[in-house]
Amino acid sequence: MPKIIDRLYDSVTQKGHVCLGLDTDLSYLPKDFADGFSNQRDALFHFNKRVVDATLDIAAVYKVQIAYYEALGLDGLFAYAMTLSYLRENGALVIGDVKRGDIAKTAEMYAKAHFAGPFEADFITVNPFMGMDTLAPFYPYLESGDKGLFALVATSNPGASDIEGIVAADGESVSEKVGGMIAGEGKRFMGECGYSAIGAVVGCTNREQTLRIRERLGGVFFLIPGYGAQGGKAGDIKDYLTGGNGGVVNSSRGILLAYQKPDFAGLPFDEAARAETIRMRDDILKT
Amino acid sequence: MPKIIDRLYDSVTQKGHVCLGLDTDLSYLPKDFADGFSNQRDALFHFNKRVVDATLDIAAVYKVQIAYYEALGLDGLFAYAMTLSYLRENGALVIGDVKRGDIAKTAEMYAKAHFAGPFEADFITVNPFMGMDTLAPFYPYLESGDKGLFALVATSNPGASDIEGIVAADGESVSEKVGGMIAGEGKRFMGECGYSAIGAVVGCTNREQTLRIRERLGGVFFLIPGYGAQGGKAGDIKDYLTGGNGGVVNSSRGILLAYQKPDFAGLPFDEAARAETIRMRDDILKT
Repeated sequence: MPKIIDRLYDSVTQKGHVCLGLDTDLSYLPKDFADGFSNQRDALFHFNKRVVDATLDIAAVYKVQIAYYEALGLDGLFAYAMTLSYLRENGALVIGDVKRGDIAKTAEMYAKAHFAGPFEADFITVNPFMGMDTLAPFYPYLESGDKGLFALVATSNPGASDIEGIVAADGESVSEKVGGMIAGEGKRFMGECGYSAIGAVVGCTNREQTLRIRERLGGVFFLIPGYGAQGGKAGDIKDYLTGGNGGVVNSSRGILLAYQKPDFAGLPFDEAARAETIRMRDDILKT
Repeated sequence: MPKIIDRLYDSVTQKGHVCLGLDTDLSYLPKDFADGFSNQRDALFHFNKRVVDATLDIAAVYKVQIAYYEALGLDGLFAYAMTLSYLRENGALVIGDVKRGDIAKTAEMYAKAHFAGPFEADFITVNPFMGMDTLAPFYPYLESGDKGLFALVATSNPGASDIEGIVAADGESVSEKVGGMIAGEGKRFMGECGYSAIGAVVGCTNREQTLRIRERLGGVFFLIPGYGAQGGKAGDIKDYLTGGNGGVVNSSRGILLAYQKPDFAGLPFDEAARAETIRMRDDILKT
């Protein structure tokens, strides 16, 4: 079996750059569809299943945002587990967007929670604020070649400047420093594709900063939020890639709610999700 | 009903400074106790219940580390929910140690997950790395007076220097800057006790830094990790308080595993937990 980062690289080559975000809120489900289920868990899962079935050949990877499921308690987390399990059974790659970050035995527990058992994902997102010792407890899983991390480096939200944007005495921003540390840690986990199993979350709303980070972090795969609603443009994306690979671009609501757009009027939600995923994929590829 | 931060302040006055950490791993349970249960969920919950019953009058607040429960999947999270519910029904104050940090609608979902429903806590810990807009979605709950936050500011782990310790061009560390931002945000949520419902996680392993942060953040209540095993000394704690209040000191394993210490040989685990909580409370009070 190839390493997980090589599988992601190959998936991008075959399917394009779309990371399909299953940040599924109950309010996103068409009413007549939701009415067909007697509980939230099944309604959420079957909505996700239909979207997945319609996009398996055109989404490089799926990202499931656990917060939406946590908000519904145990029933929601059951739907989270069912969604991850369905994706992996069908050969899809899955990022658990959990942004966990803790140390020592607590971080070991998060690794166990999200790299094994019912919440098992191929990659998870992590928050490195407390330092590089938040990452170490995940390394035994990374050493197997089957698992990977995406660490927050430069996010796409307005508040990112508060902390990530602090500039150190040597002129480097916190984002740049974190990127450098991540790249250093990642050298232990390189795939044959030239990228590491430790990737970085780098938004596409601050072009200059993203280019600077891309230039310095050659072997770091990017998970790129901020496309579309947050202002990130497809035309910029190619500059954040190397030879057309090395990054995936997330879209969640834009795809899940595509059926509400005038462009896709009349299409069922899964066909609209497919149409929007293709539109986005080609939007990035053509640039 | 007094505001949650005033209730915490009063609890410290009445019970001392111990924040009892229910970071309960199955391996902590005495074998003969664990053998009495047919599933992990009940074993975990009833261990916690016994510890809580033995310490309600001497623990200012309980902190439940969700990672330990997440690691056991849905069954573990059920035990987490049962523990929080039992604590709140018995009038105890509860910090959900979840360290969540995200933005916009995702953060709203985390707020809903941990300030309502089965995982409802009085306070939660949050990771502010992505910026102050990670906190805003919690404010509607804070405005009610019933909920509070503890934001990571200066943690007690060795790797804290990696990012929290970065020094900006103006000489301030990231921790100091985050502390300042937290204090600014917190002004909107002051209790009658003079502290805000937005507190800070500030470790007790770096005395000089903690004193500097304490001096500058007058109205910020501290959640202090690092006591005992990590090297933090009771003698230092009083300097991080103001007039004997304004902070709680966490201990988890030291209390949960007290029954394994020679000092408490022969005591059942709950009585040993009580004895160690009293020892720690007095260790801090006498200084």
